[in-house]
Amino acid sequence: MSDILSALNWRYACKVFDPAKKIPAETWAQLEASLVLTPSSFGLQPWKFIIIQDRELREKLVPHAWNQRQIADCSRLVVMTVPKVLSIEHVDANIARMIEVRGGSADGLLSFRKMVLGFRDGLEAKGGLEQWAKLQTYIALGQFMLAASLLGLDTCPMEGFVPARFDEILELEKEGRTAAVLCPVGYRSADDRYAGLPKVRFEAKDVIEHR
Amino acid sequence: MSDILSALNWRYACKVFDPAKKIPAETWAQLEASLVLTPSSFGLQPWKFIIIQDRELREKLVPHAWNQRQIADCSRLVVMTVPKVLSIEHVDANIARMIEVRGGSADGLLSFRKMVLGFRDGLEAKGGLEQWAKLQTYIALGQFMLAASLLGLDTCPMEGFVPARFDEILELEKEGRTAAVLCPVGYRSADDRYAGLPKVRFEAKDVIEHR
Repeated sequence: MSDILSALNWRYACKVFDPAKKIPAETWAQLEASLVLTPSSFGLQPWKFIIIQDRELREKLVPHAWNQRQIADCSRLVVMTVPKVLSIEHVDANIARMIEVRGGSADGLLSFRKMVLGFRDGLEAKGGLEQWAKLQTYIALGQFMLAASLLGLDTCPMEGFVPARFDEILELEKEGRTAAVLCPVGYRSADDRYAGLPKVRFEAKDVIEHR
Repeated sequence: MSDILSALNWRYACKVFDPAKKIPAETWAQLEASLVLTPSSFGLQPWKFIIIQDRELREKLVPHAWNQRQIADCSRLVVMTVPKVLSIEHVDANIARMIEVRGGSADGLLSFRKMVLGFRDGLEAKGGLEQWAKLQTYIALGQFMLAASLLGLDTCPMEGFVPARFDEILELEKEGRTAAVLCPVGYRSADDRYAGLPKVRFEAKDVIEHR
């Protein structure tokens, strides 16, 4: 556990990445595997993670993320995307995958399917589907940043970008998806003065209550 | 890293906790420390985490969480709460903490304060403040579940509850807060048949795109 606390104390929102340092393929493969294992509501995994190494493409995105250079200077940019509509096809693909992995039949999952579709319809009626999906990507984000830090990789979670422009440049619209949150990954630059600053968190007594 | 993947493959949404097994205080202290270190947008930490051990109180909450027994049978129930309004006092407490930890003066943070308050006003105007705060708790949730699994602790993330009833029973309303998401923590029961089922995730090719 001291590893976890050390990693969390070591990590920070990286302001300057070293563009020369690349994540080794094997390290990345493990981190990507951890991303795939992220838990989600009903196990529906309402996401696609776009991993961008193409430098030119990332430079195009920079102006639409408040000119934050981390977008282009990191080793890999993770764009977490969500569907604007959770299709019946998605739910059925999830059920098909359950059967593939665990056996059983679609008939045996009829009540699960009905419940999930009812849940989906309820969210859609309230206009909350995209927001629900976005919440799930933040589970991925939290898990991903801890996993990365345990591997000695720096990250910078980013909400500061224009989803509509990202969607256009990454051609997400035609797939009915939108960018939810960004996470550049790589290695901090020796020039990043933020790396050395003490971490600011409220004291435990101010954010934890025991009952 | 194999630890991380092992932990993520071992974890699952625990359906039946062993009510006799309690998390040792020292293990909990470490996990709680990890929770306090959770990253958030602008470092604003718009949350309070209520940790409930009181069995009677948890039994009262069960009916308002679809009768899911994990609420009462886990070792500790984490209720992640968010403020309905992000007050100027909260922003100023955050800035005071920055000065306390890093030194400097309030004058030196005037432009940061202005930016954060502008951000807050923008969210409030769109009615999105509570939702933004909720997103931040999902970062905490994702990080917390991975940290717990690395410690051999079981969790069960829960969206299925009635926030209004939780708010009432936990007296959150008077503090202007609401329950965002739940996470029971403890030890799986030997009787939980779900523990042995293979994990269902889409194949990497279906959720990861490289560009």
